[in-house]
Amino acid sequence: MAVTLDLNCDMGESFGAYSIGDDAAMLETVTTANVACGFHAGDPVVMRRTIQLARAAGVAVGAHPSFMDLYGFGRRRISGERPEDLEAQLIYQIAAMQGMAAVEGHPMTHVKTHGALGNMAATDPELAALCVRAVAAVDPALVYVSLPYSETYKAAEKAGLTVACEIYADRSYTDAGELTPRSQPGAVIHDIAQSTDQVLEMVLNHHIPTTGGKRLPVDPATLCIHGDTEGAPRIAAALRKALEENGVTIAPFVTPGRA
Amino acid sequence: MAVTLDLNCDMGESFGAYSIGDDAAMLETVTTANVACGFHAGDPVVMRRTIQLARAAGVAVGAHPSFMDLYGFGRRRISGERPEDLEAQLIYQIAAMQGMAAVEGHPMTHVKTHGALGNMAATDPELAALCVRAVAAVDPALVYVSLPYSETYKAAEKAGLTVACEIYADRSYTDAGELTPRSQPGAVIHDIAQSTDQVLEMVLNHHIPTTGGKRLPVDPATLCIHGDTEGAPRIAAALRKALEENGVTIAPFVTPGRA
Amino acid sequence: MAVTLDLNCDMGESFGAYSIGDDAAMLETVTTANVACGFHAGDPVVMRRTIQLARAAGVAVGAHPSFMDLYGFGRRRISGERPEDLEAQLIYQIAAMQGMAAVEGHPMTHVKTHGALGNMAATDPELAALCVRAVAAVDPALVYVSLPYSETYKAAEKAGLTVACEIYADRSYTDAGELTPRSQPGAVIHDIAQSTDQVLEMVLNHHIPTTGGKRLPVDPATLCIHGDTEGAPRIAAALRKALEENGVTIAPFVTPGRA
Amino acid sequence: MAVTLDLNCDMGESFGAYSIGDDAAMLETVTTANVACGFHAGDPVVMRRTIQLARAAGVAVGAHPSFMDLYGFGRRRISGERPEDLEAQLIYQIAAMQGMAAVEGHPMTHVKTHGALGNMAATDPELAALCVRAVAAVDPALVYVSLPYSETYKAAEKAGLTVACEIYADRSYTDAGELTPRSQPGAVIHDIAQSTDQVLEMVLNHHIPTTGGKRLPVDPATLCIHGDTEGAPRIAAALRKALEENGVTIAPFVTPGRA
Repeated sequence: MAVTLDLNCDMGESFGAYSIGDDAAMLETVTTANVACGFHAGDPVVMRRTIQLARAAGVAVGAHPSFMDLYGFGRRRISGERPEDLEAQLIYQIAAMQGMAAVEGHPMTHVKTHGALGNMAATDPELAALCVRAVAAVDPALVYVSLPYSETYKAAEKAGLTVACEIYADRSYTDAGELTPRSQPGAVIHDIAQSTDQVLEMVLNHHIPTTGGKRLPVDPATLCIHGDTEGAPRIAAALRKALEENGVTIAPFVTPGRA
Repeated sequence: MAVTLDLNCDMGESFGAYSIGDDAAMLETVTTANVACGFHAGDPVVMRRTIQLARAAGVAVGAHPSFMDLYGFGRRRISGERPEDLEAQLIYQIAAMQGMAAVEGHPMTHVKTHGALGNMAATDPELAALCVRAVAAVDPALVYVSLPYSETYKAAEKAGLTVACEIYADRSYTDAGELTPRSQPGAVIHDIAQSTDQVLEMVLNHHIPTTGGKRLPVDPATLCIHGDTEGAPRIAAALRKALEENGVTIAPFVTPGRA
Repeated sequence: MAVTLDLNCDMGESFGAYSIGDDAAMLETVTTANVACGFHAGDPVVMRRTIQLARAAGVAVGAHPSFMDLYGFGRRRISGERPEDLEAQLIYQIAAMQGMAAVEGHPMTHVKTHGALGNMAATDPELAALCVRAVAAVDPALVYVSLPYSETYKAAEKAGLTVACEIYADRSYTDAGELTPRSQPGAVIHDIAQSTDQVLEMVLNHHIPTTGGKRLPVDPATLCIHGDTEGAPRIAAALRKALEENGVTIAPFVTPGRA
Repeated sequence: MAVTLDLNCDMGESFGAYSIGDDAAMLETVTTANVACGFHAGDPVVMRRTIQLARAAGVAVGAHPSFMDLYGFGRRRISGERPEDLEAQLIYQIAAMQGMAAVEGHPMTHVKTHGALGNMAATDPELAALCVRAVAAVDPALVYVSLPYSETYKAAEKAGLTVACEIYADRSYTDAGELTPRSQPGAVIHDIAQSTDQVLEMVLNHHIPTTGGKRLPVDPATLCIHGDTEGAPRIAAALRKALEENGVTIAPFVTPGRA
């Protein structure tokens, strides 16, 4: 029986004279690109080029909105902002990305929040609801990419959005179904074989293996691929190959052009 | 015989903790708002609130894109930018505005370029063509607001866009049909009666009176109203009243909600 | 017996085309200006003009550094920043201010942290130590303005800096000597007579009256004056008059030009 | 007879999460670093680290101020700015850099303007005078690095500043003593042997060879080394070696620590 998995990767994070990541190489392996929208990274030129490259590669694109924090690359936790203000910021970013993707004839398929915003929303019901409201306001047909066992997942489902359940190959999971914090031992899985096994367990057997020995139900739609680590394109390609050899079909969760 | 004229005003130019202009007061008089898109002024929160206020007032909204220049409020001339880069910046701003207006159920009707960008494009055919391409790329149904006797007017017409011919009440015109530079004497008309006369001459008799005594043909669709000068709301209201008393109907060039 | 008190006020918070606060009016009343350094507000032009105005008015100037957060006016809490990064940001701001004040022949006398940074440092020993290190690194002769009963006060004393103990006229105090959070009833004192009484109690009797009825020892050097509220210049002038009528001499804690 | 030449290189142009240039490698070859001040590139963390690396390498540091233009990396020409505004921006940057260098015990020695600002000032007497005023205002002992046959050179000399005459190895010169514009054939010299010959001609024989066959008098103090081109550290090292083999001593024009 065939199983299908999407590979998503953050892209378009260069800015002005500054380059980061090897988007062209990553586009050979992944099937969905989360495009920075100019708030934590990216700029209109980079966005447009990234959408064009993705379209040419048959890779789906979506918005990757963030706190307004270029200096901190969206990794700093920002609080004390009024919820309606943050909601407007997200709508702006998603709308800008949607419009630019439409201009390039490559309609966007989804939204995935970036960095500190994504991490904070995963455990904060109000912030999660706010993110979901912003996506639904722009277009309720957009798919919301979210970790399972998170407030964002719950909020997106409650709002009636299609949720693409996202899993990690190179991170271990706590018994609560959350990623083990990077500060703890065993948080990161460095071995590709072990990563592959974890993904296969989640994709084929529909279970998340946890550090406490539990098996939590899961129905994964997309695997998060990192593009900003040393040797990222090579690792991604190896992981894809291993998954395909184990019978997993790699394809976008929404076919581009059919959004 | 009835003549109709739109009154357009730049709005939504506050930013974060900074307030500028009395948008609420201006919305009582004008019929079209050019909303800053976050590059020279404005931010997502301000944009959203401005669109909501405009919708409530029955005032049409459009994008007011600019160079990326918050510090200079878009008034500094920036050159040495690649044309395709500037085009992407404009698409981004127009798309963000279009999306936010759609979210508020108040579809945007037009685009008017801001400050230095607008001034430079008016006399530079390549820059004018670039601005027009950006608008057409997002939505060819958008109206392009432009001075007559300008490169932008020509470029927009050539590209098949609907152009709303914009006139000024408080600026004199050269024999070439351009605004007299502010550095020259007589550039600015301070008297409301004189301003009203100039507008009536243009609207009723379809002529621009020039400083050299010429009369240039014109078919005005919209009058530029300044919102950032001392007493702006009062002056705008007086001008509108004078125009209406002279038989001019004040209405948006595109009825909001019918875009 | 004569008592002396400084009146300090945040200034120079305009940015580019945006104006905020009536600095010229406030300079008639206060004796020390905390000048924004371009990170949460202010820009080089505003800084320079503010220093010039302060010098002309005989008002002392100091740096008012902040998180790098123009959009949030430095009021958003930002975390997840490496301490050494924030320290470098503070050094940069203080150094820029010191250099500009020197250029104007009006050497800066002190540092007061702004907004969220100041609030967070007041209760976070590590952040407090970091702020103090930055000041000492630029110039250990700079006075550190701080609330008493705070981590910053302790850290500045420990580092051997001169601390100017800052009090509030329009805020009540908890039994711990902290400002009552604005979210609680009675946090803000709106009556000038009551404000004056509180200041006199602190200045003449060296006690902070608390909401719980305690009297905490205090030796105030400077009173925080708000410049961004409705009618701020008038309120400030009235408060100064009332204090002077009660025998308090109003003067900078460091005489400008003698720093 | 011994001749001495400084090798200067722009550094510290990374920003936040973005890295650019291989500063550590360049510091092995050059003797003076022009440090970005946060307006076109760089940030306080990068500045501090760059100063620390330079001090450890015995390399002199100076300010490399620019237009406020992070997005354009200071390469866009910005006009329409009031001269006093730009002057304040330069003072701010130079003062921030001077303060940070002092904190690191590595006093800055000079100023070199960046990108579009430098290019524009080279041919615009007013802009040149403004740049020179800003440097002199902060510290008249700072050395001004400038191309010969430029308005900045003249303005700096006129103001009594010490000028370090800067030459290029990889650019040809017009008969007016200016760099041949990159748009013209023969503007860039790609061959290291030819570059070395040009430098030796200028350093040993005190003549600039021009594309028209002229020989213009010159007294070079420093050679501009590019750090942002492919293979920059290797090329710089080869050039230094060739110069040293021809009897040129490579040393800073101002010895760090003796500023």
